[in-house]
Amino acid sequence: MNRFVKQYRCTICNTCHGVKEVDGLTCPTCGEQGILDVLYDYDAMKKIVNLDYFKQHKDLTMWRYAPLLSIIPNRHDEMLETGWTPLHQARRIHEHLGVRKLLIKDEGANPSGSLKDRASAIAVLDALNKKQQTLACSSTGNAASSLACHAARMGLSTVIFVPKRAPLGKLAQLAIYGSKVIAVDGDYKQAYALSKQAIQTYGWYNRNAAINPHLVEGKKTVALEIAEQCDFKPTDWIAVSVGDGCTIAGVFKGFFDLKQLGLIDHIPRLLGVQSKGCAPFVQAFHKKGTLVEAEENTLADSIAVGIPRNPVKALSAVAESKGHWIAVSDEAILEMMVKLGSTEGIFAEPAAAAGLAGVRQAVAEGIIKAEESVTFIMTGNGLKDPDNARKAVRPPTLLKPSLADLKKHMENIGEQEHAQGTFWPDLS
Amino acid sequence: MNRFVKQYRCTICNTCHGVKEVDGLTCPTCGEQGILDVLYDYDAMKKIVNLDYFKQHKDLTMWRYAPLLSIIPNRHDEMLETGWTPLHQARRIHEHLGVRKLLIKDEGANPSGSLKDRASAIAVLDALNKKQQTLACSSTGNAASSLACHAARMGLSTVIFVPKRAPLGKLAQLAIYGSKVIAVDGDYKQAYALSKQAIQTYGWYNRNAAINPHLVEGKKTVALEIAEQCDFKPTDWIAVSVGDGCTIAGVFKGFFDLKQLGLIDHIPRLLGVQSKGCAPFVQAFHKKGTLVEAEENTLADSIAVGIPRNPVKALSAVAESKGHWIAVSDEAILEMMVKLGSTEGIFAEPAAAAGLAGVRQAVAEGIIKAEESVTFIMTGNGLKDPDNARKAVRPPTLLKPSLADLKKHMENIGEQEHAQGTFWPDLS
Repeated sequence: MNRFVKQYRCTICNTCHGVKEVDGLTCPTCGEQGILDVLYDYDAMKKIVNLDYFKQHKDLTMWRYAPLLSIIPNRHDEMLETGWTPLHQARRIHEHLGVRKLLIKDEGANPSGSLKDRASAIAVLDALNKKQQTLACSSTGNAASSLACHAARMGLSTVIFVPKRAPLGKLAQLAIYGSKVIAVDGDYKQAYALSKQAIQTYGWYNRNAAINPHLVEGKKTVALEIAEQCDFKPTDWIAVSVGDGCTIAGVFKGFFDLKQLGLIDHIPRLLGVQSKGCAPFVQAFHKKGTLVEAEENTLADSIAVGIPRNPVKALSAVAESKGHWIAVSDEAILEMMVKLGSTEGIFAEPAAAAGLAGVRQAVAEGIIKAEESVTFIMTGNGLKDPDNARKAVRPPTLLKPSLADLKKHMENIGEQEHAQGTFWPDLS
Repeated sequence: MNRFVKQYRCTICNTCHGVKEVDGLTCPTCGEQGILDVLYDYDAMKKIVNLDYFKQHKDLTMWRYAPLLSIIPNRHDEMLETGWTPLHQARRIHEHLGVRKLLIKDEGANPSGSLKDRASAIAVLDALNKKQQTLACSSTGNAASSLACHAARMGLSTVIFVPKRAPLGKLAQLAIYGSKVIAVDGDYKQAYALSKQAIQTYGWYNRNAAINPHLVEGKKTVALEIAEQCDFKPTDWIAVSVGDGCTIAGVFKGFFDLKQLGLIDHIPRLLGVQSKGCAPFVQAFHKKGTLVEAEENTLADSIAVGIPRNPVKALSAVAESKGHWIAVSDEAILEMMVKLGSTEGIFAEPAAAAGLAGVRQAVAEGIIKAEESVTFIMTGNGLKDPDNARKAVRPPTLLKPSLADLKKHMENIGEQEHAQGTFWPDLS
């Protein structure tokens, strides 16, 4: 346990538990619903973690933030390098979106191609600390493939429960990493329920992100990096797509930590983006009520989560940051995939692109102002889901190997389109 | 033009041309066959590029090697960050291969997921310098998607000629990046021939790697990085798969440069690996003859090149390094994909995994000795080709969401297999 960890607070009953009082992962009183938040002694942490610390620290991975994590990351130097992903300044797409400045945090550059690598790396090191050999989770894909990746590297086993709709790229990854894959003939809720029973039965390490408070602490490193890469002057807004709610909770926690440490002077406003086909958070936000189960009806598989497992942390993250929730259509997601790829050279999976589609809609609705700046967290590599990418674009032209045929084809395309540098339909 | 570039030498007639004598990309005497090699003034370069230079240089991208490149990389700071990919020390797979030490250069971490990003980034900056708006190439996939990626970022157009067998992940990438994709109803040779005619006809920038000497200079940065990441003490061998021959030529050139600069004391021996279904270099090596056209009969699409376009540079790279050529079967490639994934957490596309399968075979044949060290260049991300990954592994188990069914399934798998941490068939 990190020496700066003070207590765990239950997100349901708000009771603070001493570190040694908590046996499992959740609140002893509230049971599984009682997801815990890790509380730190920021006064003590401040003496170590300051601007000088960052100036001098040479490790360009997520482990540079070790003093801000809830576990001790022993053996992290044996892991695949995770984190310190690029933060690109948008060259052109911010104009299309209608904002002054857009930064793109490219989490597709992580070892298994998604932000989830940050949580899975924590899970694997925690399991090693606890001498557990097998890790399990249910996942729409990215949590699973990232867990399988890091566990394989460190010689641990994984059992993964996926809903059967998980896309090809992600399933192939799991298989290659040597996971035992249980494709559950049902939706994400059913995969989750079975994984929970199995974890209890077999005593495996639980990498279900909501249940395990250490994982949100891992995810918060994305916010720590964004802040540091901006010289601790983050943008006005952070936009990210939301499924279970753990990632946006982690993003908030990272900025919260930095605010407590006096390293940033404001927490950016969080824009939580969901798909219209599965938007329980957005519904709860607009009805000012509690979260109600939603259908899982979107091609953005990574955020198709009908019963989010981390509702309290996610809702309060957006509320405390004075942020907003928004839902976008599948059509807007596909359109944004093409726009992002063809203007910035970045290929996002549908769930990732949803976050950016949310920015456009938030600007249209006046939630984000033209003079504001935004960081978009690109949560997963588009290569994970080529099938949906195909839906976003025209098929390539099949031509005989003949210059005459090519010339005819080029004429049909028309000079004007050619000069504009794209032949793909402008879907906007 | 970089001030250290002295001359161009034709790889066919060995004539050296002054920088201003060469109008196009190839030798004025030999025409298209006369691929040029860039010669540098190492004595002048030495005064700038030394150990101190590297210690002080903070740019962790391929552009830290700007003084060793043939173009001036203006505007590189606007590009997506390319290069300085991780060099992982293998934790377990070296034992399976039978070598003392294995390093894995993970080129899948580049923006479009392959080593080709290094060449394409050069092409895009060169086109910008020359004020050309449209770039074209023929490619089995990675050269194309990397070009499309970097061109999109910088606002340039691309026309890409692919053979129709190019895999889904790569085609989806091209489409998302907004390229004009011409799928040629034929093989790579025919795609190449049509691209050549079209480039002449339309005057597009030519990003066919063999023809364009600047691209091999871009590719050499992978060798410069490997050396620097090893404190300029590279391994005994470097293993890399070979298609057109440009990558292995670039790898040699990088080490050659460092040797000339006195920064390394030996050039590692190069192991050029091809697939048995398309092995023109291996055949030429064993028959000590010139290269003869081969069939393109392998699932490793990125190295399925029947008529390599850079034969002289590639053959002499291996010869001058006292290296070796070897061919591996498609079965060995698929097996190595699983082995690499399940022991190191790294997902390689088939052509990339071929390089590692070559290491195993070279050890078995006594070419690489057990006490030697090897760097394996993992040239492309496995997510680019999920279809072939599926061929390498068992399909996931589809189960009803029932604990009883799961228990039955777990018993059938057997405790022993479970304890070993993998359920995938050991194909070795």
